Amino acid sequence: MMAARKQLSLTAFLMRHGHHVAAWRHPDTDLVSPPFEVYRDAVQRAERACLDAVFLADSVALTGAPSVEPVTLLSALAAVTSRIGLVATATTTYNEPYTVARQFASLDSISNGRAGWNLVTSDNAAEAANFGRERHVDHAARYARAREFHDVVDGLWQGWEEGAFVNDKAGGRLLDSAKVRRLDYRGEHFAVSGPLNVPPSPQGKPVVVQAGSSETGRELAAATADVVFTAQATLADAQAFYRDMKGRVERHGRAPDSLRIMPGIFAVVGTSEQEAQDKFGLLQGLIEPGAGLALLGRMIGNFDLSGYPLDGPLPDLPVTQDGQRSRQQLLTAIAQGENLSIRQLYERIAGGRGHFTVIGTPEQVADQMQAWFESGAADGFNLMPPTLPGGLDDVLRLVVPELQRRGLFRTRYEGTTLRSHLGLREGK
Amino acid sequence: MMAARKQLSLTAFLMRHGHHVAAWRHPDTDLVSPPFEVYRDAVQRAERACLDAVFLADSVALTGAPSVEPVTLLSALAAVTSRIGLVATATTTYNEPYTVARQFASLDSISNGRAGWNLVTSDNAAEAANFGRERHVDHAARYARAREFHDVVDGLWQGWEEGAFVNDKAGGRLLDSAKVRRLDYRGEHFAVSGPLNVPPSPQGKPVVVQAGSSETGRELAAATADVVFTAQATLADAQAFYRDMKGRVERHGRAPDSLRIMPGIFAVVGTSEQEAQDKFGLLQGLIEPGAGLALLGRMIGNFDLSGYPLDGPLPDLPVTQDGQRSRQQLLTAIAQGENLSIRQLYERIAGGRGHFTVIGTPEQVADQMQAWFESGAADGFNLMPPTLPGGLDDVLRLVVPELQRRGLFRTRYEGTTLRSHLGLREGK
Repeated sequence: MMAARKQLSLTAFLMRHGHHVAAWRHPDTDLVSPPFEVYRDAVQRAERACLDAVFLADSVALTGAPSVEPVTLLSALAAVTSRIGLVATATTTYNEPYTVARQFASLDSISNGRAGWNLVTSDNAAEAANFGRERHVDHAARYARAREFHDVVDGLWQGWEEGAFVNDKAGGRLLDSAKVRRLDYRGEHFAVSGPLNVPPSPQGKPVVVQAGSSETGRELAAATADVVFTAQATLADAQAFYRDMKGRVERHGRAPDSLRIMPGIFAVVGTSEQEAQDKFGLLQGLIEPGAGLALLGRMIGNFDLSGYPLDGPLPDLPVTQDGQRSRQQLLTAIAQGENLSIRQLYERIAGGRGHFTVIGTPEQVADQMQAWFESGAADGFNLMPPTLPGGLDDVLRLVVPELQRRGLFRTRYEGTTLRSHLGLREGK
Repeated sequence: MMAARKQLSLTAFLMRHGHHVAAWRHPDTDLVSPPFEVYRDAVQRAERACLDAVFLADSVALTGAPSVEPVTLLSALAAVTSRIGLVATATTTYNEPYTVARQFASLDSISNGRAGWNLVTSDNAAEAANFGRERHVDHAARYARAREFHDVVDGLWQGWEEGAFVNDKAGGRLLDSAKVRRLDYRGEHFAVSGPLNVPPSPQGKPVVVQAGSSETGRELAAATADVVFTAQATLADAQAFYRDMKGRVERHGRAPDSLRIMPGIFAVVGTSEQEAQDKFGLLQGLIEPGAGLALLGRMIGNFDLSGYPLDGPLPDLPVTQDGQRSRQQLLTAIAQGENLSIRQLYERIAGGRGHFTVIGTPEQVADQMQAWFESGAADGFNLMPPTLPGGLDDVLRLVVPELQRRGLFRTRYEGTTLRSHLGLREGK
């Protein structure tokens, strides 16, 4: 199955220090500048490379390095950029839909149509404890709430019809109230009257991104998402996921192209293969066992692995009740398939956390991306730079030009909205 | 009682079209530009005039002209300014404290210490209906929740001690976890573990603003606020309010100076008295009766006045159960004291909504402000420009220089944080 569009979508998934668990220890990492300055620099670089968007993840608890709330941050970044899309995570588990609809519609207005919302559910006990709960909400309940949450947000975004602004000073008529629709949603979890008090942007409504891998998560994405981010370690797995998702999208009565599937890619790039391996080796050598174990424990379903020998095998773990079930399966399969010790497993995931990982020259990285793109595994990629700014720069200055030479990526922006960059229709 | 500091604080309370109910119909009002562009222009003008801050109100329902969510908007404005403070309203009634603490700490980080939070409770049925409630929460319950909400937010903001960032790359130690305190708050309304996942800004924590006028609201402000915004129609009322609040602050064991009292002022300024009156007359002539009645009904406790003769007296109204009780008392007293018809009353409040109103030359406006400042009625003023940009420009280009000539207002910023502009100590 060939991807329907001729060009890749590329987003940059930015973290404060980069994706590698030891990125903050890298000699080039700036620990002192305020977060906004670090991100401003990174987003402006990404915009110069014509990327579709930058993406910021989120957690409603202190689970890694502290940073700033992503919608607030992206709004500030909107003011210092003009074309690149701005995508942030916001949880449906501990927010209210009217609030989230407003925040992303506001970011969309401020950025003139460049906002995207990564809809997630929260699966972490530390997050639950910041919102008055003893433990996190279970998977089925989270997804039932998420589905309603999406429908309310989307309904609020669609409440402003074309022509709602009359702007008739002489006649004394600012709005045509018949074109500003109430929502009057009444569901299991939410009752929301509307209308939204934020007018729509030039792209109609923000792009919706999702990353669920469970059966429920895939169904929600197939029904409602514009973009799916996904963790796929191998071409075969990615192809299977791609086929599965496009099939689901069609069964929901949507065009397959209306959902863009974008696996994450952790690429370490050097001008020679040796240089790339040396860059990776430098980072791997900076992993402290405590940080490696904590990352692995979190990824594999919030288990404490500190009691097990580092050079022994991964113990048999019960199936996690958290949202990390798919990641747990992925990592357990890698450990068993390759007979890895705990140390080897955390070293394996210290960079890409189980995502597609490539270490090599710009040509080698581009070859892999092209192969995935042209063999029905991806509509594009969510780039996971190992470090900031160096690891991001390597991809933008070495890999992107190689993709451009091959005609696989734009050399200038044609539209002004995120929907336009992604080849999606304008939101109703 | 003399105000303790020699200089006024000045903030600009910005609305999309200006404060006058007919501002959007004014010939100069720009209805077409996106909200961000209109506010960017206004905030940059306010910064050139060295104002302490701009202030954006908020409603979690469509109650006036649509706009963008204020924290999102201020974050974008932080990126295009460098000194002026950025204050926004966020309700304690329909939010979670962890979320609000994060948003304002993020704005504070992005702006390098210029954020302020106007803590309010929501008293409007339209807002309740966007959050699954049949009617709004009653006054006592709202304030009980607000007090806890404040304590959680403030506790989260104070969780990061000096020296929490170790930044020791060689030793592998990013944070000193002993200096990042959990909160472990357990109250009637909230249970929040913390710590906050946003580091503190150069001002320590955001400024807290309040505007409650009820007994409960005054007590909350005296215990917890840095700044109080207030609606006072006359010098005598303002002096009584000022004395009352400073006394309460002292009874809470705080220095009187630690709370800045800032009445709103609706000033229409002309180079001659006649020009000022003409400007005001132009706006008054643009009031449509429907808009005037709706404003009056909202201000007086959410009553529908459309059944009463416009040129008859204000009917006897039951005491509102909404948060507008103090405003209802203020407006009823004005109507009765001056024997005003309904039309006359809505014309009276169409600009300043019951706030201190001055129409005159720069000298006349400055005289009034100086009189209030020097006779124990105000530590500064929250400027309510009738229109944008013209009404704001009149105050900034005509009145502010007059205050500067009198030595009552700064001619350049001395500090970089909002706390510094306001003469408040750095937040712990």
